[in-house]
Amino acid sequence: MLNFEILASDGKARTGILKGTHGQTETPCFMPVATAGAIKGVRWEEVKSSGYSMVLSNIYHLYLRPGTELIENVGGIHKFVGWDGLILTDSGGFQVFSLGDLMKLTEEGVYFRSHIDGSKHFFSPELVIEYEEKIGVDIGMVLDECTPYPATREYAKHSLERTYRWAKRSIEARTSDKTAIFGIVQGGTFDDLRILSAKLTSDLPFDGVAIGGLSVGEPKEDMYRITSLIAPLLPYEKPRYLMGVGKPEDIIVAVEHGVDMFDCVMPTRNARNGTLFTWNGKLNIKSAKYKSDERPVDENCDCYTCRNFSRAYLRHLFASKEINALILNSIHNLHFYAQLMEKTREAIKNKQFKEFKKEFFSKYKTDEESFYYLT
Amino acid sequence: MLNFEILASDGKARTGILKGTHGQTETPCFMPVATAGAIKGVRWEEVKSSGYSMVLSNIYHLYLRPGTELIENVGGIHKFVGWDGLILTDSGGFQVFSLGDLMKLTEEGVYFRSHIDGSKHFFSPELVIEYEEKIGVDIGMVLDECTPYPATREYAKHSLERTYRWAKRSIEARTSDKTAIFGIVQGGTFDDLRILSAKLTSDLPFDGVAIGGLSVGEPKEDMYRITSLIAPLLPYEKPRYLMGVGKPEDIIVAVEHGVDMFDCVMPTRNARNGTLFTWNGKLNIKSAKYKSDERPVDENCDCYTCRNFSRAYLRHLFASKEINALILNSIHNLHFYAQLMEKTREAIKNKQFKEFKKEFFSKYKTDEESFYYLT
Ligand SMILES: [Zn+2]
Ligand SMILES: [Zn+2]
Repeated sequence: MLNFEILASDGKARTGILKGTHGQTETPCFMPVATAGAIKGVRWEEVKSSGYSMVLSNIYHLYLRPGTELIENVGGIHKFVGWDGLILTDSGGFQVFSLGDLMKLTEEGVYFRSHIDGSKHFFSPELVIEYEEKIGVDIGMVLDECTPYPATREYAKHSLERTYRWAKRSIEARTSDKTAIFGIVQGGTFDDLRILSAKLTSDLPFDGVAIGGLSVGEPKEDMYRITSLIAPLLPYEKPRYLMGVGKPEDIIVAVEHGVDMFDCVMPTRNARNGTLFTWNGKLNIKSAKYKSDERPVDENCDCYTCRNFSRAYLRHLFASKEINALILNSIHNLHFYAQLMEKTREAIKNKQFKEFKKEFFSKYKTDEESFYYLT
Repeated sequence: MLNFEILASDGKARTGILKGTHGQTETPCFMPVATAGAIKGVRWEEVKSSGYSMVLSNIYHLYLRPGTELIENVGGIHKFVGWDGLILTDSGGFQVFSLGDLMKLTEEGVYFRSHIDGSKHFFSPELVIEYEEKIGVDIGMVLDECTPYPATREYAKHSLERTYRWAKRSIEARTSDKTAIFGIVQGGTFDDLRILSAKLTSDLPFDGVAIGGLSVGEPKEDMYRITSLIAPLLPYEKPRYLMGVGKPEDIIVAVEHGVDMFDCVMPTRNARNGTLFTWNGKLNIKSAKYKSDERPVDENCDCYTCRNFSRAYLRHLFASKEINALILNSIHNLHFYAQLMEKTREAIKNKQFKEFKKEFFSKYKTDEESFYYLT
């Protein structure tokens, strides 16, 4: 059960409401990553109060540990992890195809060995749908063949074709509308293949369509070019999801081209490295210049961390390798991403997305300058 | 400024209120350990809502990192760490005397090298008082010479004598009554030396007296024997603090002999090892038997963890090496210790301490049986 309503748009950017079995979220939205069923260092209540109502988990990880059957037996994924909002699960195709020699691909599905204990397993498009329905996720991603970077044209073509055949099998395998299913566009960095994949996937009765196989090591130019090319080709009335992206600047650029959903480990992973997001760019809390800095990370942020602690204290915790450094940094970064999405939606509603984008880039110091080619 | 009022007693056990510069705590109390200025994995608001109003930190650690001068410059320890309740700091004598070859003891004080970067430092009784007053702790411990275990009688005698001379210098060094100062009883495992040290320390104008040099590797019988011998000899009207103790069973036995204050890393350290405290004893969340266990850790516990998560989920988080395992386990264990102290105080108020103790030991599976010799 999935309902997507676009409430306003500004150029290609749009804002709306996505309703699933466990609640709803405004779009464009960012999904914090709970790979193993937990947002590292952050509580659900904080995830919620920051403004999130959908998180991402991963079937590959949950299947291996604790097991999808166990999750089903204890009442489903929401009850098991203690989150009553929306949950989207990636199929884990990306993880399985990263296993290299531990993985063997056939037309039927993929044989692989667990990265945890080497045990043998098999995933097929049908099994992934079955697992997603059984644990009761709100949105499940199909099993796709994630094209690595670099890949030859021939390889990319074969893998998008297999992804399409699997997509059709995934749709056939559905038994419940409680779990919505998204298809995935592949095609590597080849524009014509991407267009072909977008067309094939869009024509299937999916609840939403994702752009996969980006943010896998390709140059940023490729990522931006393909996003801007493909997002507008996807069904207007369905949610569009750019998988694994990304940096704040990437999100803003993708929203401009009509993307509605994002996920990335960056806010929590960077937090664990001492990198904090602010409207001026990234702040490295390890730096000696924050030694006696009594200001919060961001004076305009109202997260738990900024309301209670100074940069000096956060730097001290990080230097002392205290767990609380990771916790407090993660809370702030997730809050920043939530604010970023909130302001993005606000700008679209007010038909001021261009101004918002301009203001963002005038303050935010990005890692690269390459994105300008698209702006 | 310290005020201690005994409100009720039952046998030698007593319950009262200890008031310091930053609030008050009921006694007997347990102090969660915030060595570097943070309770690992737990928030101050949770520490408070669990029932704690005093925590312990460590001058040695704070002096080395971030530096007592820095803490003073940013407004003192309470402001720096974001805790507005009582703070007691250990001098760090125990840590310095554990440095072995990196430490050189003189009558004036102790030269040592930082365990962090090898840099050279010097602590004297006077300097420790100065640091404690400057960062503004509520209760500071004197610098003592912590007698290791095992030690010869001669060694133990010399070190208690030096501790006494340093105690007198510590009192002379005081410049403010905002920071209360506790003396420390030493004397190793020698009863007569312990009695001598207790008498010498009790006669000095300290705000409270601690029993140090226990829980340093000696047999449990020694710890119990000395606690039961010494606690009742300490000034009745002053708070008595058993340093570094301990297990729930140890605390109950010590309370019976008139101890008022405790600290130990056990609740948080055990949490990080997957060991959870319950009224039936310790629970190893790693055990396969909790795989599908939908019950909370303790059905009678109203901590955040028990209110929201199952044993199955906690086991999964631990197995998946998720930070949240450490966080949720620590919250529960600290809550258990707070409840243990709450029920202890309640029993004393109701003149039912013996019954409470009996009931506790009838349910709680301890690690050893040795404590029975005292019961
Ligand atoms: Zn913040
Ligand atoms: Zn609990």
